[in-house]
Amino acid sequence: MKPLLKEIRYNPRLWLLVFVPVVLIAERIAPSNHTLLFVLAILAIVPLAALLSHATESVAEKTGDAIGGLLNATLGNLTELIIAIAALQAGEYMLVKASIAGAVVTNSLFMLGASFLLGGLRHHVQEYNRAGGRLYGGLLLMATIALLAPSAVADLDLARGEVMAQNLSAGLAVLLIVAYGLALLFSLKTHKELFASADHGDKEEAPWPLGLAVGTLLVVTVLVALVSEIFVGSVQKAGEALGMSPAFVGFIIVALVGAAAEMAVAFSAARKDRLDMSVSIALGSAAQIALFVAPVLVLISYVVGPKPMDLQFWPGAVTMVMISAVTASFISNSGRSAWFIGALLLFIYAIFAMTLYVVPPGAHAPA
Amino acid sequence: MKPLLKEIRYNPRLWLLVFVPVVLIAERIAPSNHTLLFVLAILAIVPLAALLSHATESVAEKTGDAIGGLLNATLGNLTELIIAIAALQAGEYMLVKASIAGAVVTNSLFMLGASFLLGGLRHHVQEYNRAGGRLYGGLLLMATIALLAPSAVADLDLARGEVMAQNLSAGLAVLLIVAYGLALLFSLKTHKELFASADHGDKEEAPWPLGLAVGTLLVVTVLVALVSEIFVGSVQKAGEALGMSPAFVGFIIVALVGAAAEMAVAFSAARKDRLDMSVSIALGSAAQIALFVAPVLVLISYVVGPKPMDLQFWPGAVTMVMISAVTASFISNSGRSAWFIGALLLFIYAIFAMTLYVVPPGAHAPA
Amino acid sequence: MKPLLKEIRYNPRLWLLVFVPVVLIAERIAPSNHTLLFVLAILAIVPLAALLSHATESVAEKTGDAIGGLLNATLGNLTELIIAIAALQAGEYMLVKASIAGAVVTNSLFMLGASFLLGGLRHHVQEYNRAGGRLYGGLLLMATIALLAPSAVADLDLARGEVMAQNLSAGLAVLLIVAYGLALLFSLKTHKELFASADHGDKEEAPWPLGLAVGTLLVVTVLVALVSEIFVGSVQKAGEALGMSPAFVGFIIVALVGAAAEMAVAFSAARKDRLDMSVSIALGSAAQIALFVAPVLVLISYVVGPKPMDLQFWPGAVTMVMISAVTASFISNSGRSAWFIGALLLFIYAIFAMTLYVVPPGAHAPA
Repeated sequence: MKPLLKEIRYNPRLWLLVFVPVVLIAERIAPSNHTLLFVLAILAIVPLAALLSHATESVAEKTGDAIGGLLNATLGNLTELIIAIAALQAGEYMLVKASIAGAVVTNSLFMLGASFLLGGLRHHVQEYNRAGGRLYGGLLLMATIALLAPSAVADLDLARGEVMAQNLSAGLAVLLIVAYGLALLFSLKTHKELFASADHGDKEEAPWPLGLAVGTLLVVTVLVALVSEIFVGSVQKAGEALGMSPAFVGFIIVALVGAAAEMAVAFSAARKDRLDMSVSIALGSAAQIALFVAPVLVLISYVVGPKPMDLQFWPGAVTMVMISAVTASFISNSGRSAWFIGALLLFIYAIFAMTLYVVPPGAHAPA
Repeated sequence: MKPLLKEIRYNPRLWLLVFVPVVLIAERIAPSNHTLLFVLAILAIVPLAALLSHATESVAEKTGDAIGGLLNATLGNLTELIIAIAALQAGEYMLVKASIAGAVVTNSLFMLGASFLLGGLRHHVQEYNRAGGRLYGGLLLMATIALLAPSAVADLDLARGEVMAQNLSAGLAVLLIVAYGLALLFSLKTHKELFASADHGDKEEAPWPLGLAVGTLLVVTVLVALVSEIFVGSVQKAGEALGMSPAFVGFIIVALVGAAAEMAVAFSAARKDRLDMSVSIALGSAAQIALFVAPVLVLISYVVGPKPMDLQFWPGAVTMVMISAVTASFISNSGRSAWFIGALLLFIYAIFAMTLYVVPPGAHAPA
Repeated sequence: MKPLLKEIRYNPRLWLLVFVPVVLIAERIAPSNHTLLFVLAILAIVPLAALLSHATESVAEKTGDAIGGLLNATLGNLTELIIAIAALQAGEYMLVKASIAGAVVTNSLFMLGASFLLGGLRHHVQEYNRAGGRLYGGLLLMATIALLAPSAVADLDLARGEVMAQNLSAGLAVLLIVAYGLALLFSLKTHKELFASADHGDKEEAPWPLGLAVGTLLVVTVLVALVSEIFVGSVQKAGEALGMSPAFVGFIIVALVGAAAEMAVAFSAARKDRLDMSVSIALGSAAQIALFVAPVLVLISYVVGPKPMDLQFWPGAVTMVMISAVTASFISNSGRSAWFIGALLLFIYAIFAMTLYVVPPGAHAPA
């Protein structure tokens, strides 16, 4: 426990952990004060996600290269996954889909853009491994095409559409997970030298002993699950009270909260002129959402939800995700960056957020 | 005749020629067994397409560089053209359009992807002429934009739409053919050095004497036309029996059958680490469909079909073709490949095929 | 006045200035001969735009680097802006929006394509500063995404849509102008060395004295405004008489007329093998329309128009602008050009023009 307590003492971000008991107690005392619960839940999830990320890396480091890489890759978006499962259980399909699409958009526009901007404010022009950027850009582009193809292509007849969308989504989910497996085989085994420069582990944090890491992983996962349930239960009503649509909450709020831990690492790398790492975290994480988190959620929905979830996204989401992936691929293709590139990515993100805030998708969007 | 017979003896693929008389006889005996005729016709077209391709190359070789290049380029998709004309005559416009769109998608995703995968399974990383890939990628991208622009842009009013779409398609067809002529002028005459590395002729097959080549070309063209008629006549019913929509048959089956000969060459080149050739065959052929085959079919439809054909594609087809062209351009832009790149292209192709199989375009798609 | 008169004497294009009084008189004599007024107005605007451009550059040269660059950038599309304001005053929102979208398309397809073609007819292969092309391409791509995002993303409910589109457009306009300000800060101040090669001033024309330049600027602006009013008043009826839809007139005619002066400079640079300058004028000007002219028009519409204008474009316009920006970015990314590249860009432009001519956007397009 010592390294954990020491880290908590010296890392101000982790002081937010105090909100974990606070939100759990608040839910007992004031279960109907949704706005309060919503804010407290966000404040509690952020430090938990950071702990989860550190624990995952520590376990990965102890288990050797191949399995470690696998663990890191698979558990990298664990926070997003747990929140989405909580939403699935509550039957909030709109929120789940919005958070999937929003996570891709947030990672590829906001995380990448803020990395470029923060790095560019310190360094005049930043060069980074072009091959790596291109590789992750291509992976992201194809992952999003694979995820969105059915929504973009299928001219769904509403009457008989649901069953077809369902069957298609299940088949697609299997296909995506196979593709993800091959991606891991490629990046961790057959061609791992191509990904070499993109060293995920930020070495300033010492790894924990295996027992502590595994214990933390388990305990924190349970805590995230508990807090996520409160979060999902309050988000709708709180969003309404704050004038936000469910689409906006899923797209922007959930995505930002879920990715907070990775953002901290990506931003700190960018400031140290290690843009390779920022690019690979941002684009790799976005690709992972499309290739792994989304199909896993479809398969899980057969078990936990009131009914299976399909992968039909409303047209605006398809457009936003495609624009984000194309833009991020195009930008990371060049291997050079300056502050304005980051600013432009953030502008596009702001425009999407503003559009979603003002004009939520209509009631005819697939639920 | 000797070189022809010798080639047939030593090339197992050509043994399938036995299915040519079989299908012609079967059509007499069992004209209503559509599924049988469909399968036999496919088995007969594949070796005929290979012969056609070899005969074309032999004629091209004998007639010198410029005319030879022109012949190769113009007759390269002769099989697709003959099948499509048979479908035009039968008034199967949906099938014709699906086969045009499907040929672009199949060439740029399946042929390119399988080349990368097959090459990558033998060679760790494959480098190829980046300028060539970029050139063909750009050509393909612009060819598909030119082909699809009216479908993507025009907000067709259904009432008066048909006549307008008709006029537009005729004008567009002329424009595309002029663009194709300029593309030939560019690649065969003014800038042929840029295309030098992409040597189409696979030198392992000795060219035939001119008389034999021209004779084969004529006889095989007639045979392909006969078999195509049976194929088109049976495909609809057979597709129904096998649970496939006309869109799926045109997009996937016809496109794969029509491109079988070129695929054999592209795949063999990829395995020999000559990806230049694979890329130029795949993307060049896709571009040719858009710039030459499609407009020629529109013009021919004024003569042979029950009514003129337009170039309005249903929205899903537009999206699939655009995604394929953008993805292929983006990928071939890099000049490097590994097996996973090919696997990803094939995954996207599989997702398109699955989507078309499960969710055929609605009845409101333009016929 | 001497340098002005001397320039007019030696520059045959400026002899068209004679049409300025002609059109003003014609409007008194034959106010209902719309086709005549339309043609005369075009003939008058072309030389005025050339004078405006020369005067702006002269003022810019005299006022030093930073302010000069700012002036050049801000007044570079002054003609388009004045015409659009005249259309705003007349309540012709469809025309204004079509001219915004058309200016982006015309600059990125027609101006760039004709530059490549004209340059390529003289020079076998032209190389240009790849970093510059990439930078402008990226800027253009993101500017158009920012401009179009709401139209592409929002699933506007027609009943309550107008007010939302209005609010969104106003907020967006402010955001775009801030982005434009940052772009100027980036290109004129913090990273001006990246843009160094793209020297806009065509040195063959001697700058005028400051007094003359400012005076010309003011007088010509007034003249352009007067002629624009006649142009806008006649364009609708003349278009009808010539069989053109308002969309075609805005997209093609107004955009070509407004950009005539810049085109002359871009084409002359291309012929002199200075493609850097052509690319930066074409793409820079297209980006400026999206980031500066469009939002300024929205803000101005609160003051001059019968009601505020929003930034909702009809779907075909969104597609055309996106295709143009992606194509131009992709092409200018390579740093090499030959005549055929230019020809292909012009073909795509011709296809758009043909489509708009034959199939105007339906009556349900947002006005």
